Amino acid sequence: MARPRLRAIPLGGIGEIGKNMMVIEYRGDLVLIDCGTKFPEEEMRGIDLIIPDITYLKENIQKFRAILLTHGHEDHIGSLPYVLPQLEKIAPIPLYGSPLALAFARAKLQEAGCAQLADFMPIEPGELYKIGNHFEAEFIPVTHSIPGAMALCLNTPVGRIVSTGDFKLDPTPPLGPPTDVGRLKELGDEGVLALFSDATRVEREGFTPSEATVSETLDRVIGAAKGRVIVTSFASNILRLEQSIQVAARHGRKVAVIGRSMEQSVQVAVDLGYIKAPAGVLRPVDEVIKLPPEQILVLTTGSQGEASAALARIASGDHPKLRITEGDTVIFSATPVPGNEESVAQTINNLFRRGAHVVYSAIEPGVHVSGHAARGELKKMIELTQPKYAVPIHGEYRHMVLYQDLALECGLPAENIMIPESGVPISISRGSWRKDPEVANGSVLVDGLGTDRYHNVVLRTRESLATAQVVIVTLAVNLEQGVLIAGPELTGKGFDDEDSQKLIAEAEAELRRFLERRLRRGNMSYGYIVGRVKEVVARHIYRSAKLRPMVLPIVTEF
Amino acid sequence: MARPRLRAIPLGGIGEIGKNMMVIEYRGDLVLIDCGTKFPEEEMRGIDLIIPDITYLKENIQKFRAILLTHGHEDHIGSLPYVLPQLEKIAPIPLYGSPLALAFARAKLQEAGCAQLADFMPIEPGELYKIGNHFEAEFIPVTHSIPGAMALCLNTPVGRIVSTGDFKLDPTPPLGPPTDVGRLKELGDEGVLALFSDATRVEREGFTPSEATVSETLDRVIGAAKGRVIVTSFASNILRLEQSIQVAARHGRKVAVIGRSMEQSVQVAVDLGYIKAPAGVLRPVDEVIKLPPEQILVLTTGSQGEASAALARIASGDHPKLRITEGDTVIFSATPVPGNEESVAQTINNLFRRGAHVVYSAIEPGVHVSGHAARGELKKMIELTQPKYAVPIHGEYRHMVLYQDLALECGLPAENIMIPESGVPISISRGSWRKDPEVANGSVLVDGLGTDRYHNVVLRTRESLATAQVVIVTLAVNLEQGVLIAGPELTGKGFDDEDSQKLIAEAEAELRRFLERRLRRGNMSYGYIVGRVKEVVARHIYRSAKLRPMVLPIVTEF
Repeated sequence: MARPRLRAIPLGGIGEIGKNMMVIEYRGDLVLIDCGTKFPEEEMRGIDLIIPDITYLKENIQKFRAILLTHGHEDHIGSLPYVLPQLEKIAPIPLYGSPLALAFARAKLQEAGCAQLADFMPIEPGELYKIGNHFEAEFIPVTHSIPGAMALCLNTPVGRIVSTGDFKLDPTPPLGPPTDVGRLKELGDEGVLALFSDATRVEREGFTPSEATVSETLDRVIGAAKGRVIVTSFASNILRLEQSIQVAARHGRKVAVIGRSMEQSVQVAVDLGYIKAPAGVLRPVDEVIKLPPEQILVLTTGSQGEASAALARIASGDHPKLRITEGDTVIFSATPVPGNEESVAQTINNLFRRGAHVVYSAIEPGVHVSGHAARGELKKMIELTQPKYAVPIHGEYRHMVLYQDLALECGLPAENIMIPESGVPISISRGSWRKDPEVANGSVLVDGLGTDRYHNVVLRTRESLATAQVVIVTLAVNLEQGVLIAGPELTGKGFDDEDSQKLIAEAEAELRRFLERRLRRGNMSYGYIVGRVKEVVARHIYRSAKLRPMVLPIVTEF
Repeated sequence: MARPRLRAIPLGGIGEIGKNMMVIEYRGDLVLIDCGTKFPEEEMRGIDLIIPDITYLKENIQKFRAILLTHGHEDHIGSLPYVLPQLEKIAPIPLYGSPLALAFARAKLQEAGCAQLADFMPIEPGELYKIGNHFEAEFIPVTHSIPGAMALCLNTPVGRIVSTGDFKLDPTPPLGPPTDVGRLKELGDEGVLALFSDATRVEREGFTPSEATVSETLDRVIGAAKGRVIVTSFASNILRLEQSIQVAARHGRKVAVIGRSMEQSVQVAVDLGYIKAPAGVLRPVDEVIKLPPEQILVLTTGSQGEASAALARIASGDHPKLRITEGDTVIFSATPVPGNEESVAQTINNLFRRGAHVVYSAIEPGVHVSGHAARGELKKMIELTQPKYAVPIHGEYRHMVLYQDLALECGLPAENIMIPESGVPISISRGSWRKDPEVANGSVLVDGLGTDRYHNVVLRTRESLATAQVVIVTLAVNLEQGVLIAGPELTGKGFDDEDSQKLIAEAEAELRRFLERRLRRGNMSYGYIVGRVKEVVARHIYRSAKLRPMVLPIVTEF
């Protein structure tokens, strides 16, 4: 009989940025590394999120042992509230991770009402955790744009696997320890069979600057601001939030948080002591916005131009609590994830149109640094861990090819470097490796009705698409002038009887009323109007008939 | 009676990148500066080009005197073949510009069959050209990424207007003279009433590097390449084409050109002596592709990931003459125009997937430099021309706001700097300026049937959209795996009788056959499949019934 082999199966994160998820299995044991979501691109027309297809996990549920989380960012934990309910049969599922990663995971699961499906197992770096009959996991601190980020070392019967998670080698992280280079070197000296490495930033030479440099820039920009300051970043970028709060306090500003996911993550980070706001600085938004402009700092979601986030609503003049006025300074302490460049640019333009002074990377490079390792650091990671096999993960196809070149430069033989493919198992023994036939994999679209991400949500799988009820919404608008040029016209598929047609006609009338009212106020980005069109139609149909068709807005901008 | 005022009316290029066009009018005279096109973004779903709405020109046709072209790039001359036929009543229309700009314009107009509508007036720098009763135009050489680029000085009864066109202050341009800084200074010393300035690159500090630096990088990269080399750039980037040809010759490579617009511009530049290819280097593609790989260099269109360009077809494995093989090097000597980031990234990923080594700005910054002035140069231009009034043109909204800040820094009073709006006349007298009520303006979509841009084309205006026949095509695909998941389904608006419905059903069947065949070959970008879907459906309907409905593909990628 052939010797059993270890299989590493990426179910996401390969050839794309986001929805990171990797299966590691050996005989009767299967563990999952990370469980992330991905941002939809504009052409997804109002889809909220993308999660991995976990058919393979469901088919192998009897082997499922645990989920190991490298850190608390959305693209590594965001799918948990959708994935755990699908694995309910074997709940509670052990969830290993740093206290911060677990706190983020818990908050998400609680909001979705399914925290009871997880068994939270906070880890200590350096400890060994036995998982199933065949695995031992060790977590190694690395630096990233969130504290509590970990690389993973998995001891398996065929050898030791190291997965870097997202990392850089920041020598002066403002929160938490630097990357445990010593331990990585020890592991390398003892022998690492395979390294799975972050490759997102391989295009850049040298070393990524330290997070500490951002504090200085924020201090200078916020210190110079005369009016209100609004800082946007990823909700989970705890470092950036802590830095902003400290700088605000230093300049006599109170801080309010706008945006559900950011409110949640600030709460978590305060509870765990990562955010140490001086007394009285963090205040409710209703209180802060009444202060004089020079005493106000608002932290908000929407740094990616996401249509559903607070900043897109603020930039569109649609937010109930905050309106941009002349003299406001908006700081983008984040750069666009590939694919989001245009929605971010439109948000920046709209903020300028409303009179804000906007500060972003192109004009103030120090306002953000990447959380990912540049070429020099990726090389260093290979040198430290000295793996037999190397596999780039987390990156578009070009990043993986460039990582392959880098590993060659580091002296690995070509046949020991592999570009992985989504759903294609990498089958590893001590002496050889190969690809096995592809397993089920792909994307599942999370289609919600508005701000609540977890309830009244439909998961659209490939299979469901062919038979789904569909409503196509066609319209042409001039966004700048706020004019509806043609439409809206609604066409239903699977809405044939008279009642259904009446329903579609009512939704059309409601959408028309919304558009006429809303367009007059101007300044919407393309993505934002697409999202709102979808929301208005989907909600009306849901409220009237409890149906959840797929709503596809085709908005022609003119 | 009020004194007559000068009116400057931007009809494009304001708050956007592309379709530059500005009206200057005084009493009975109207001249047009530039006549450009704009790239559609991916959400335009298969639209080929965007041109300005010229209703205002048609309404004032009796005053129309001439078109002044600053240079030969698409975003400054591309609309001529669509605009001149709309002004046919007053043809031939005097077209002033450098010999190269006019040669490009002529080639375009000839291809469209309407060169007789223009009266080509090649200019000499320093000469004064009388236009109508009230204007005198002088062309001042500036550097840009094309030779023969000019700033414009327009002497008018209220004062002197300078419009920079696209420019930078490259001290060592490889082709043509440097910017005539002396003449700009003279004009400034004599007095400039208003400066209209390029603002596209205001986000960048300092000075943009010289075009000469690109030659060195190309020499190094092409010198190191073992297999075939493919260089992509803008078709009209004559400098880059000339540089590539010289480098190719130096390394013993023959050069072929693929892509209609680039073939055309190489021909024009050879005829005018801007491209001086050593004998026997420029050869037909059928001959070059038979040579050994190390003797081949191909110049091609598609640097923006445009679905209809040669490189997108090559990257998708759809080009009849060139297939990427292992060992090919593809050089992107261009950066994405804002909005094209994602289609460029997808093209790069697909080229890597097919085995090419791809060289682009992120990993080899010297492979391209911008043709636009950075902050230091924009400042210098203000200092040289010492205008009373300053107006940023050519840029997104944020660029114009940042230019406003820059002009303030240069000492202009706030009330003498204006952010223009599309279609809103800036009304200027010697002593004051103001905005007049908006005139007709906007976008017109050029909707073709495939590779021929000028024939069987429909211009879709806002007015036509409400009453247009429309075919909506819905489908879901997995591009990576080449699987059609749902659809295609065609829904027609204005196709109600039995024959029409049969036509739609046939188009649907044809599209299905195309997709099943094509998807199996994999590696298409999202934009490319959207373009092809539109093309297949629109052509079928045109061939069968001579109808040209608006075809709107909704492709959900899964």
